[in-house]
Amino acid sequence: MNTLRLKKHEERRLREGHLWIYSNEVDTAVTPLKTLTPGEQVLVEDFSGKALGIATAQPNSLICARLVSRDVKHPLNKSLLVHRIQQALSLRERFYADPYYRLVYGDSDFLPGLVVDRFGDYLVVQINSAGMDLVKDEVVAALEKVLSPKGILFRNDGKARVAEGLESYVAVAAGEVPQEVELLENGVKFLAPVHEGQKTGWFFDHRENRARLKGLVEGKRVLDVFSYAGSWGVQAAVFGASEVVCVDASEFALDYVEKNAALNDVAEKVGTFQGDAFQVLTELKEQGEHFDVIILDPPAFIQKRKDHGVGLQAYRRINELAMRLLTRDGLLVSGSCSMHLGPHELVDVMRAASRHIDRLAQVVYQGGQGPDHPVNPAITETQYLKCVMARVMVN
Amino acid sequence: MNTLRLKKHEERRLREGHLWIYSNEVDTAVTPLKTLTPGEQVLVEDFSGKALGIATAQPNSLICARLVSRDVKHPLNKSLLVHRIQQALSLRERFYADPYYRLVYGDSDFLPGLVVDRFGDYLVVQINSAGMDLVKDEVVAALEKVLSPKGILFRNDGKARVAEGLESYVAVAAGEVPQEVELLENGVKFLAPVHEGQKTGWFFDHRENRARLKGLVEGKRVLDVFSYAGSWGVQAAVFGASEVVCVDASEFALDYVEKNAALNDVAEKVGTFQGDAFQVLTELKEQGEHFDVIILDPPAFIQKRKDHGVGLQAYRRINELAMRLLTRDGLLVSGSCSMHLGPHELVDVMRAASRHIDRLAQVVYQGGQGPDHPVNPAITETQYLKCVMARVMVN
Repeated sequence: MNTLRLKKHEERRLREGHLWIYSNEVDTAVTPLKTLTPGEQVLVEDFSGKALGIATAQPNSLICARLVSRDVKHPLNKSLLVHRIQQALSLRERFYADPYYRLVYGDSDFLPGLVVDRFGDYLVVQINSAGMDLVKDEVVAALEKVLSPKGILFRNDGKARVAEGLESYVAVAAGEVPQEVELLENGVKFLAPVHEGQKTGWFFDHRENRARLKGLVEGKRVLDVFSYAGSWGVQAAVFGASEVVCVDASEFALDYVEKNAALNDVAEKVGTFQGDAFQVLTELKEQGEHFDVIILDPPAFIQKRKDHGVGLQAYRRINELAMRLLTRDGLLVSGSCSMHLGPHELVDVMRAASRHIDRLAQVVYQGGQGPDHPVNPAITETQYLKCVMARVMVN
Repeated sequence: MNTLRLKKHEERRLREGHLWIYSNEVDTAVTPLKTLTPGEQVLVEDFSGKALGIATAQPNSLICARLVSRDVKHPLNKSLLVHRIQQALSLRERFYADPYYRLVYGDSDFLPGLVVDRFGDYLVVQINSAGMDLVKDEVVAALEKVLSPKGILFRNDGKARVAEGLESYVAVAAGEVPQEVELLENGVKFLAPVHEGQKTGWFFDHRENRARLKGLVEGKRVLDVFSYAGSWGVQAAVFGASEVVCVDASEFALDYVEKNAALNDVAEKVGTFQGDAFQVLTELKEQGEHFDVIILDPPAFIQKRKDHGVGLQAYRRINELAMRLLTRDGLLVSGSCSMHLGPHELVDVMRAASRHIDRLAQVVYQGGQGPDHPVNPAITETQYLKCVMARVMVN
């Protein structure tokens, strides 16, 4: 195994719990990066030669290595993967009675570059680093050993792979995986299009936030903006909303809204509206429509730090458009999955939007990602999801 | 009505939703503060003389006035109080089926200086500003009109009153109020000592966080540190914990733990341990004790900004002491009610504590105060409560 020697003091972040090594932290005079193969496992040492653990190398990236083990006796192999997956599973089983969740969440489960979503007997896997890609057969073997799934699907078509120079593809890795799989969320049934849908086919991360709709939507008219397959809207309908309108740009997503509404016998309450959310909200306002509860679950408007200003404006605009559609003292449920938007920034977006239309907001709930997306407290990037609920009052 | 004229641009914060006016923002050449009576209502104008609303004055404080109305036609009187209390009530009734909650939360309910906790037919009121103190009879009258309670208790013995130069007392303001009143939280029964307990007798703010114990404590050994009257510990016992130990410095509080455990038929599972939490945790460690779930709900270790460093160390120490008592992969539930401790600071306290004992933390939940303690998004001081849950793993 090759060695990566860190400069003096550069071991500190790893000791604090972080897993990433930046290229400028490596003593490249002693251990040049150029000789390493993407994904190979290396021994990490501090400046004095003391072993810190094992990392997988990405010699051409700014983050040139990721720690996969703090014990040099345990490299990243099937055995370690089985151990980590079992630890991850035990966490999910504490929180969830049903087997539908993110089973492995990368750095937070000490498996950098690996994401696994579980839909009962089916697993959808994303491999996002060269290091994890080199052991993908072991990943499959470890998942089979721990869970004996009926099928494993590689959704290896995410943007992160391009950055790592990995090929983009979707393929069944083991067994058989149907086009759509069933799941249960907060007691509501759904079909997720795992082969063709966004990301792994489902967004488990807002589950706890969606659960909060219970008790808040009975007899209410609900608008679900950026609805995807109806995760919010169909739950609102099942929780007693009198009417739900789901808005999404994708016809494919809205087909799933209809399927999922029918699956829960609420099809007659759930309508769909295809189009750009900003335009649709403007049109609904022009038509004099109002809603008691509006859910905004947009894609990341801030993908990179440099887009912060433009993205913030987009959040501001969509939140204001939504507030204009609220009934008196209506409830706005506003989400953001932009890691670069701080929790208080989203609260402030809602404050500013409310004041701009001469209303006053009371924030009644601030949630994040569920326990199947644990946060690694040393890696702020692992915390990305926000959900803020506010009553928007007429002054 | 006297007038308070602001300097140029100093109206901005009020327009953004804030309610406080600092003495250096007032054009004292035009409208001197000295002539005002503590608590009197004043007309607030921007530099050009445009009316911004009505505030109550505290001429001798740094915060020299608080906005009570944005409409000059509606000063703070019984009518406005009734309106605001009804608005506050309608928010709580959306979220809670049972009448036990903070009914009015000061600035967040646009009633600066007023806190009302509701225990069914009994109301406990704290008046914390000179402005609200001047209309305390109207407060009682408004509460009677909206809720027809059996009794209203003034718990006007908080620290904030001293700062405002108001007298400190506890007195029944209307009807009759028994020494202890009943409440229901997450389906669990409690008695709250409203006359003699801490603050208003109960801390409703952690309710949603306590609800998260459900499903996490079955068959587990639970330690509840700074237990007060058993709000966390007794709920853990009712939710299926095999054993609960409540630690508090106050014998009075622990008597209520026992009463509340008995009330829910879990007395045989709930033990108490009187003493200083830091000492008790050290002793439990020396005795080789371990717990599967540990709850830390300390008083504010950072009362003032200048105490930030010392307080942070106290949080660090108590979290580390708790982690040392956890079983393998145990769960730490760590709270803070210090407004001056940021949410990420508490997460980082837990990270640092875990690394100091060579463990790794996974943060699975980050909660705040419940919807009966809404946050005014313009006033960061209204957001103070943190609750972080982490699995603490053996490396």
